[in-house]
Amino acid sequence: MSKALFIRNASQLVTLQGSSKAPLVKDAMSELKIIENGSVWIEDGVIQAVGTDSELKAKYASRLADAEVVDATGKLVTPGLVDPHTHVVFAGSRENEFNMRLQGASYMDIMNAGGGIHATTRATQAASHEQLFAESYERLNQFLRHGVTTVEAKSGYGMEWATELKQLEVAKELNEKHVIDLVSTFMGAHAVPKEYKENPEEFIDLLINEMIPKVAELGLAEFNDVFCEFGVFTPEQSRRILEAGKKHGLLAKIHADEIEPYEGAELAAEVGAVSADHLLKASEKGMKAMAEKGVVGVLLPGTAYFLMAESANGRKMIDLGVPVALSTDCNPGSSPTVSLPFIMSLGCLKMGMTPAEVLAATTINAAHAVNRASEIGSLEVGKKGDVTIFNVPNYMKLQYSYGVNHVDTVVKNGAVVVKGGQLHEKLLVSKN
Amino acid sequence: MSKALFIRNASQLVTLQGSSKAPLVKDAMSELKIIENGSVWIEDGVIQAVGTDSELKAKYASRLADAEVVDATGKLVTPGLVDPHTHVVFAGSRENEFNMRLQGASYMDIMNAGGGIHATTRATQAASHEQLFAESYERLNQFLRHGVTTVEAKSGYGMEWATELKQLEVAKELNEKHVIDLVSTFMGAHAVPKEYKENPEEFIDLLINEMIPKVAELGLAEFNDVFCEFGVFTPEQSRRILEAGKKHGLLAKIHADEIEPYEGAELAAEVGAVSADHLLKASEKGMKAMAEKGVVGVLLPGTAYFLMAESANGRKMIDLGVPVALSTDCNPGSSPTVSLPFIMSLGCLKMGMTPAEVLAATTINAAHAVNRASEIGSLEVGKKGDVTIFNVPNYMKLQYSYGVNHVDTVVKNGAVVVKGGQLHEKLLVSKN
Ligand SMILES: [Zn+2]
Ligand SMILES: [Zn+2]
Repeated sequence: MSKALFIRNASQLVTLQGSSKAPLVKDAMSELKIIENGSVWIEDGVIQAVGTDSELKAKYASRLADAEVVDATGKLVTPGLVDPHTHVVFAGSRENEFNMRLQGASYMDIMNAGGGIHATTRATQAASHEQLFAESYERLNQFLRHGVTTVEAKSGYGMEWATELKQLEVAKELNEKHVIDLVSTFMGAHAVPKEYKENPEEFIDLLINEMIPKVAELGLAEFNDVFCEFGVFTPEQSRRILEAGKKHGLLAKIHADEIEPYEGAELAAEVGAVSADHLLKASEKGMKAMAEKGVVGVLLPGTAYFLMAESANGRKMIDLGVPVALSTDCNPGSSPTVSLPFIMSLGCLKMGMTPAEVLAATTINAAHAVNRASEIGSLEVGKKGDVTIFNVPNYMKLQYSYGVNHVDTVVKNGAVVVKGGQLHEKLLVSKN
Repeated sequence: MSKALFIRNASQLVTLQGSSKAPLVKDAMSELKIIENGSVWIEDGVIQAVGTDSELKAKYASRLADAEVVDATGKLVTPGLVDPHTHVVFAGSRENEFNMRLQGASYMDIMNAGGGIHATTRATQAASHEQLFAESYERLNQFLRHGVTTVEAKSGYGMEWATELKQLEVAKELNEKHVIDLVSTFMGAHAVPKEYKENPEEFIDLLINEMIPKVAELGLAEFNDVFCEFGVFTPEQSRRILEAGKKHGLLAKIHADEIEPYEGAELAAEVGAVSADHLLKASEKGMKAMAEKGVVGVLLPGTAYFLMAESANGRKMIDLGVPVALSTDCNPGSSPTVSLPFIMSLGCLKMGMTPAEVLAATTINAAHAVNRASEIGSLEVGKKGDVTIFNVPNYMKLQYSYGVNHVDTVVKNGAVVVKGGQLHEKLLVSKN
């Protein structure tokens, strides 16, 4: 039996109890199920008890002396944060392009200077497995410092099988070797490769008949995603791609209605996608369809911030009954951040969500968006011992005191992996 | 002779050399005077040499073994950041009010629930000197973790002499006991107290004839500030207050054109203010007048972010020749943050400034805004050994990789006070 971990006496322990079966919607997104002076007992990586400090002190009286204790007095304790939409496995960095943009360069200027998504495709193609692993591993360390214990990761910088495979294999190895859990998504349908520009159907056939079956057979992904956008994949093409994934056991996700209204939200509801993401231009009809089918709306206000655009209307989606989650969209072009706490701030100040809602949106609803709600996203007996401790006394202050990473301690599978805001190096070699 | 500190081999050393005489304007704001593989030698708290690593290694060859070395390989080294506009000396916290606002409460709902500036006035009046000191000291620690080594601090939550005096005395003690340097500003003219609502001229007489002379006599402030805004102090009243300060040796600052266009920028130029701050609604005429007189425009995009408003037009001001600085506006009502790095991000993404400009705006131009440009704000021989080291390889990436506090090391007066992003506790007792 491994040593028990006893997190004690949080001024607010956000449990989100009872939210594992279905994502939270409307007013339920504000019901954080807070225990004051709350404590958690974790053993063998799993939560064994949740309650007030006096309840747990009594229950484990005979074992207190042997447990590792984390004093959370005066602090906010939440489920480990979950980031349900990233492109974290990539190579290279594009700050030059960003600088050009702020100096007034046009999209075409940047493209002509070798920028844009193709810069990342080239770098990711050129990188060795080891290099891609090392760059992504370092990013995961930074996610951890920002309180995140589970990250979804998409392929899609390949545009050809060898690189897609490399991205997926790196994600698999990261999942094995980094303490953060990765949920893997195949996104061969990220763009139409140049050589198929005149004949996109041929590329779609390749995806459907070769790549998707191989990914499923190799067990390299749980989700299949598509960039459904005017000029990329049409709703009909997207539907075929997502249905093909489902046939091979891959759950559907969709990049929908980011730049133009394109009925991506409607399609997500029709194909039974687990989530539809971006949604800046989603129609009210699409939102209602998502609400009806329980499709999680994964909103990415950091991308809007970085691209100097308007955010999705998170407030309206919640009011219409869409279960909303939030994500960094971590990627080198449109959202080079690892800070989910900052995304929460944007959720409040750019999308009109409340401090309670953004917390539900980055824990249990994000867990639903990656099909992990039975294991993570709330602090309940039997769930993974994934816990984030913030150096603020309450969840409102987490948003009020803006622009700051308040993460103090992160516990992953019952082990302290971040302490005093810093990585606990010895624990980062392997999760096993 | 104290031990020397040798900061070595930064991938970019931003010196901002030659900018001490006048604030940077227009294209000069982008001339960071970067040394690649740059190093700094500091002794007795003062910068002794700045150059390439090989130059300094040769120059100090005989003393290398005795110096404390900070390896900045692969990192960005800049002057210690300067925050030229804060209300950091206050008591209490208003996250409930923020939460109410996001839940849809109106300004009047919040006022009726005991919120607004009067909540802070009451808390600050009620707090003992010790309590006010302790709360503000902790905030300064957090400023330090975000790379800030000098902070301007205003009074103004008193509305009566005893509390104004308490705030100024706390600022004085903080300046003595915290490693951060404080620049003190008297802002008795923050609002018209309720009891003078019918007779504001009487309060202005009190400010001019009693408070300002006393502050000057006691040596408790270097600046005198006024909230020139429709419904608060008129431009004519503001002029009288600022002229009275000048008569007693207090330099002028002004909260100008925040909510309504009110010719505050014009007034700043007329009275020779060192800075005019906020400026969301400043007229083009006012901006041009500021440019002509070299009045620093201190922009506070965090306040706009937190109040869900449009930022000031930083891009236009720079293009018109206004020397622009950036600040947190740290205060419990409209900007409860301590992160100047996040304000820099807003400078880029909400005001169209470039990564180079936001760095000039938080170092040398901010130093000019607090009349300290001969001592701080650039890395030059004879200046204070105030240095911030960021865990990014170049100044563009500091903004590109957004939403994250990249501060790795902070050096104040030649001593390492933040290391690995964390406070170096033993050095925080006293700066002496
Ligand atoms: Zn994406
Ligand atoms: Zn102010």
